[in-house]
Amino acid sequence: MVQKEKITEPLHRIVSDPGRILTKETDLVSYGYDASFGFYKPDVVVQVKSEEEVAGILKMANKLRVPVTPRGQASSLSGGPLPVEGGIVLDFSQWREKLVIDSEDMVAVVSPGVITADLDQEAAKYGLLYAPDPGSSHFSTIGGNLAENSGGPRCLKYGVTKDYVLGLRVVSPQGEIIRTGGRTVKNVTGYDLTKLIVGSEGTLGVITEATLRLIPRPLSSHTVMLIFDHFVEAAETVTKILTSRIQPAKIEMMDQASIQAVEAFKPQGLPVDAEAILLVGLDGHPAAVADDTARISEIASQMHVRSVRVDHSESEARELWMARKLVSPAIAAKKPTKISEDATVPRSKIPAFCKKLQDIKKKYQIDLVVFGHIGDGNLHPNIICDKRDREEMKRVWQAVEAIFKAAIELGGTLSGEHGIGTMKRAYMPWELTPQELDLMKRIKTAWDPNNILNPSKIFPSVRPKLVHSR
Amino acid sequence: MVQKEKITEPLHRIVSDPGRILTKETDLVSYGYDASFGFYKPDVVVQVKSEEEVAGILKMANKLRVPVTPRGQASSLSGGPLPVEGGIVLDFSQWREKLVIDSEDMVAVVSPGVITADLDQEAAKYGLLYAPDPGSSHFSTIGGNLAENSGGPRCLKYGVTKDYVLGLRVVSPQGEIIRTGGRTVKNVTGYDLTKLIVGSEGTLGVITEATLRLIPRPLSSHTVMLIFDHFVEAAETVTKILTSRIQPAKIEMMDQASIQAVEAFKPQGLPVDAEAILLVGLDGHPAAVADDTARISEIASQMHVRSVRVDHSESEARELWMARKLVSPAIAAKKPTKISEDATVPRSKIPAFCKKLQDIKKKYQIDLVVFGHIGDGNLHPNIICDKRDREEMKRVWQAVEAIFKAAIELGGTLSGEHGIGTMKRAYMPWELTPQELDLMKRIKTAWDPNNILNPSKIFPSVRPKLVHSR
Repeated sequence: MVQKEKITEPLHRIVSDPGRILTKETDLVSYGYDASFGFYKPDVVVQVKSEEEVAGILKMANKLRVPVTPRGQASSLSGGPLPVEGGIVLDFSQWREKLVIDSEDMVAVVSPGVITADLDQEAAKYGLLYAPDPGSSHFSTIGGNLAENSGGPRCLKYGVTKDYVLGLRVVSPQGEIIRTGGRTVKNVTGYDLTKLIVGSEGTLGVITEATLRLIPRPLSSHTVMLIFDHFVEAAETVTKILTSRIQPAKIEMMDQASIQAVEAFKPQGLPVDAEAILLVGLDGHPAAVADDTARISEIASQMHVRSVRVDHSESEARELWMARKLVSPAIAAKKPTKISEDATVPRSKIPAFCKKLQDIKKKYQIDLVVFGHIGDGNLHPNIICDKRDREEMKRVWQAVEAIFKAAIELGGTLSGEHGIGTMKRAYMPWELTPQELDLMKRIKTAWDPNNILNPSKIFPSVRPKLVHSR
Repeated sequence: MVQKEKITEPLHRIVSDPGRILTKETDLVSYGYDASFGFYKPDVVVQVKSEEEVAGILKMANKLRVPVTPRGQASSLSGGPLPVEGGIVLDFSQWREKLVIDSEDMVAVVSPGVITADLDQEAAKYGLLYAPDPGSSHFSTIGGNLAENSGGPRCLKYGVTKDYVLGLRVVSPQGEIIRTGGRTVKNVTGYDLTKLIVGSEGTLGVITEATLRLIPRPLSSHTVMLIFDHFVEAAETVTKILTSRIQPAKIEMMDQASIQAVEAFKPQGLPVDAEAILLVGLDGHPAAVADDTARISEIASQMHVRSVRVDHSESEARELWMARKLVSPAIAAKKPTKISEDATVPRSKIPAFCKKLQDIKKKYQIDLVVFGHIGDGNLHPNIICDKRDREEMKRVWQAVEAIFKAAIELGGTLSGEHGIGTMKRAYMPWELTPQELDLMKRIKTAWDPNNILNPSKIFPSVRPKLVHSR
């Protein structure tokens, strides 16, 4: 068993500033959580600030067989930054020095601890856009976004985080400093390690710098709110819009339970008897956006929309979006525990998926609220519960399993944007065959033979616990 | 040594139709070439038509240690489908039965032998677009495009082939049938094997089916031709356009040598004294396209453009693009050998790269023509020569090396869209460190321990030749 001193002693040689090595009990406890479930206390936390430090720590950890878990702002909903097997947590949140926009190359070069929204705000000064917009963008780090391949509403038009990563600087599990990709959109020199590492949930490498693609910032935007009596008409409207050669930036949905939760929490004048609200965000050239707005209203009318609201100013747009923004706080206010799922189905299967969700709600008698990115099939069924109520939680976890099963049966996936982490690893065999999992594991083993980098994530198999001091 | 009979005998058990197993000398010779250099005769060719056949062949080949090389239409410019170590060539060009468009899910599901342009044509019937448009799209297969992660002019706005692949069916090097990804844009369940296999040049798996993302087809398009006295003003205009919140679909460039070659080959009324022509393609909403066209003309005027031509009809657009389309045949008509490079640099480095190319042209006294996708830094320096002239070819290969070196020194990459294959493998250590190459090799070894799938590609190291009957 490796003693805590065996780790902290070499750490002090690697990290010059002892203030960035945390070993106090109170610190360790606060690093034992993220935004998902479970508590796992690390043995030591290092607030890293350079690639050399990360490389030094990984080399040492690899030698001593100590688990290392990278962590940004810990907003993960799947357990990515939880130090399940103890060991060292690398806290990247303090490493945010670099945020360079190159408007000619249309790239941003960033440290891992930069907050995602700050990056986009900086890009805006140059008329550029960093497109991915996860719900956590105002507090999550870009490093965490990259590790999890974050999504968001705007992915409908712009794609996911991975689509905006041109190059990385990475420390491998064995402590080698490497670069992947480069500074150009086109690069086919060797295997695409960039897109393998992005989304690998910190299990294949530790990202220390990223070169991200920026695009011209749209000149204008519009928001349309569509209120429907019947859910199925809302779902059909989504399909109709997307097959009419219109490309909205985002199409968000609130079901009746979401509408009622918002109205109970902070009234917005939404009709509580409506089965669904769609919020459509359009961006681009002003004439195109105006035209598409009119066409969407027309399509919605054909689909028996109850009412259409269009913004006439930025403040009106903000008001319309407020309804959607309030869903999470509104449901969180109802009960202490909120389980946010992100199982994703092909767009054509959304009506069937929503029907199954309502069946699950009834069968397990759970408080289920459904909202999210309906345009790309990435809904967020949220279960509101109290984790201290063991009887209720038993039904809740059964319902969660039923949701996973429903999504997979409809040709969808366990996770659209939150990641597998600790939360969904047990269900991986539901979606992937042993052969498929084996090919993934072979990569992990080839790169991290001692399984020190973020162990006990993604893969369902339980491997022997590492030797460490917990 | 494995005898040819040892291979053909089990092949006849795996492939029901003996007419699809080719062993005649004339057939074998014709499968020994692609659109790059070198000739390598296979021992046997199988025109595969099902996933079971591919799996059966790979299992057998893996047991007998026989190399297997997948091949589409062999339009590769980097040697991807060349059977360097002999063995079995899997010809996918006859397997084109499946081409299904699902307009609701906005996906296409295709067999590997489908011609890329046929796919886009089918998508167009549903108002949808398959965005990647490699120069070979009218004769190359989608399977080859996926293996090489093909680019093209439209990548400037839409990204590369990889960005449009949602899911694959693949046979692993050891003959396991797997699926990767799915039918949704968002999918973070496990490692991204889809994007690892796409662009791996047929060394990590054999693609038997692909689910591809389609997007709404733009409602209109416009073409602007800009003629410049000075190259540097053309390059600056590109930057100016792209930093003015305009997103053209493509910006193509022809240098003076290209212009002169076209005028000598098939006169288009282009001014042979101009140093550069830019062709800008815009697509989207009609009002947006019209407005952007006007803005581009205005920007070009500020940059001292000699003349601006804008299309007023589809036939006029075709006429303008004809100039660019004629570059390749025009230069091919000058001399028997044409070496097309695709080294790519960050956009801001294009003027410096072009300057270096002119220096290289002078130093090695080569006939160099530069054109291509200037908007994304992916130029095509083409060397016109005669491969029978040994003295000339010595200078040519020195010039090619100098081009690679220049691109890498400017922060670019060896290959933007053609792939590494046999042609550039020796130069991989110029761009990648031993550690970076080692991480790639570890994946290859973990998946293909006997190195039977498309050996002698990508990696610079020379491994012991496989035992086979050549």
